[in-house]
Amino acid sequence: MLYGAIEAGGTKMVVALVEDTGEIKDKVVIPTSTPEETMPQIIGYLKGKDIKAVGVGSFGPVDVVKGSPTYGCIMNTPKLAWKNYNLVEALETGLGVPVSLDTDVNAACLGEMTYGCAKGIGNVIYVTIGTGIGAGIAVEGKLLHGMMHPEAGHILITKRLADRGQSVCPYHDSCFEGLASGPSIEARWGKKAYELVDNQIVWELESEYIAKGLMNMILTLSPQKIILGGGVMHQEQLFPLIREKVAEVLNHYYDTRELADMDTYIVPASLNDNQGILGAAVLAMNV
Amino acid sequence: MLYGAIEAGGTKMVVALVEDTGEIKDKVVIPTSTPEETMPQIIGYLKGKDIKAVGVGSFGPVDVVKGSPTYGCIMNTPKLAWKNYNLVEALETGLGVPVSLDTDVNAACLGEMTYGCAKGIGNVIYVTIGTGIGAGIAVEGKLLHGMMHPEAGHILITKRLADRGQSVCPYHDSCFEGLASGPSIEARWGKKAYELVDNQIVWELESEYIAKGLMNMILTLSPQKIILGGGVMHQEQLFPLIREKVAEVLNHYYDTRELADMDTYIVPASLNDNQGILGAAVLAMNV
Repeated sequence: MLYGAIEAGGTKMVVALVEDTGEIKDKVVIPTSTPEETMPQIIGYLKGKDIKAVGVGSFGPVDVVKGSPTYGCIMNTPKLAWKNYNLVEALETGLGVPVSLDTDVNAACLGEMTYGCAKGIGNVIYVTIGTGIGAGIAVEGKLLHGMMHPEAGHILITKRLADRGQSVCPYHDSCFEGLASGPSIEARWGKKAYELVDNQIVWELESEYIAKGLMNMILTLSPQKIILGGGVMHQEQLFPLIREKVAEVLNHYYDTRELADMDTYIVPASLNDNQGILGAAVLAMNV
Repeated sequence: MLYGAIEAGGTKMVVALVEDTGEIKDKVVIPTSTPEETMPQIIGYLKGKDIKAVGVGSFGPVDVVKGSPTYGCIMNTPKLAWKNYNLVEALETGLGVPVSLDTDVNAACLGEMTYGCAKGIGNVIYVTIGTGIGAGIAVEGKLLHGMMHPEAGHILITKRLADRGQSVCPYHDSCFEGLASGPSIEARWGKKAYELVDNQIVWELESEYIAKGLMNMILTLSPQKIILGGGVMHQEQLFPLIREKVAEVLNHYYDTRELADMDTYIVPASLNDNQGILGAAVLAMNV
């Protein structure tokens, strides 16, 4: 059985054909320009491939609440050509198969829960730390939506007094994304993350901000596992620092079996950056 | 049909007989001293009343994860006489009926969802701001547990630079409970909340801290409604200030239908401080 999977990003669309075993049979990358240019290419690629359904993990904000009048639409995005564009409708009309939509981070969380390091675990957070910060969240095996979908990358965290960097978030002076995303690292230090590998001060500060963001998610969601993905998290030296600082900020207030083993509690994404596209395929399988 | 309901607090136990219609037939208050003194009084009161089941909303931390080896136990509490005490086992043995346990705040959330202002809504947060701060959380109609249960009263928030108060939380320098609970107000201003009603500066600062705490919960959980209870929230002048400041800190990043109507989004508890005991009764009904 073959499924279509789409990882819809702000700069590129990854489109794949995935077997129900989780094997990626083929994959293409299509630039995200305008719906008029991009969508026919996606539909052209998937058409005639005998797929049963399509799953989409999309950049947001996006209306993922089934039954909502704008279900399937990309909402108030700075990418104006896509604002109010109904992704689900376009794909269903173009391909004649059912389409299931969620956020890119929820899809990645689902990918890890189905094929990766969170298999069999019901309460999981997948946090991507890259160009932006976002969190995909599962509660008892189901992806969390609520009134819209979580936007936990924008929770407020406390800036270190000596930090001369400015929040790169246009909305918030002191949010997780504003202080700890890839662009915030570049703005603060004048270089990209991968050019700063040997500068320990960079990773001390970065891990402090990540730990503070994670602490708030841990106390609010009580997850059984936290998976960190995205470009910044390719800096593997961050993991031991983050684990240490999360324990420090929690300060033994919250003692659980899971937290007692930080090495298995806070882990890197396990699917070679295919967690998003595989999760999108699972969305299609569950349609 | 009659159910036993217990609101187990650190200083007192409220024990009630509740009809399945939600009518409280009778209620007593028993001091929380030691299990040896307190439990026989609770059991004595409920015994022979032909109750079908008992529900408990308890102070924490408490193990509410069914299947866990310590399910039913009060965990690492400063009330040492109760540490590791198995509430569920004691009540089931003493009364011979099934017992269902959750946190006090989850019970209050459930009470509001069944009989109060959150009827018919699936994604709800109930935040109590009093002696401590805690959050009861429902996702798609089910109370959230995860690896233990949320402890969202201890999320980190940013202290205002001019705030001379110190966090009253022994674990965290700058957490929600440490900066915004009743005792933190008293420590900062030298008077209790109800003696400070006319001091606008007090409520400006208090509402700022509450708004910051709520913002992080909103972005993480995406709730459809937020209910605020507890002693501090009896200061009704806080509500308009909190609504205004939540909108301010979100800064239109997160626009939803629910947030557009703050007066129905952030609301006071609606059950005359019976939300906890009624929620405990619902736990019994659902056992």
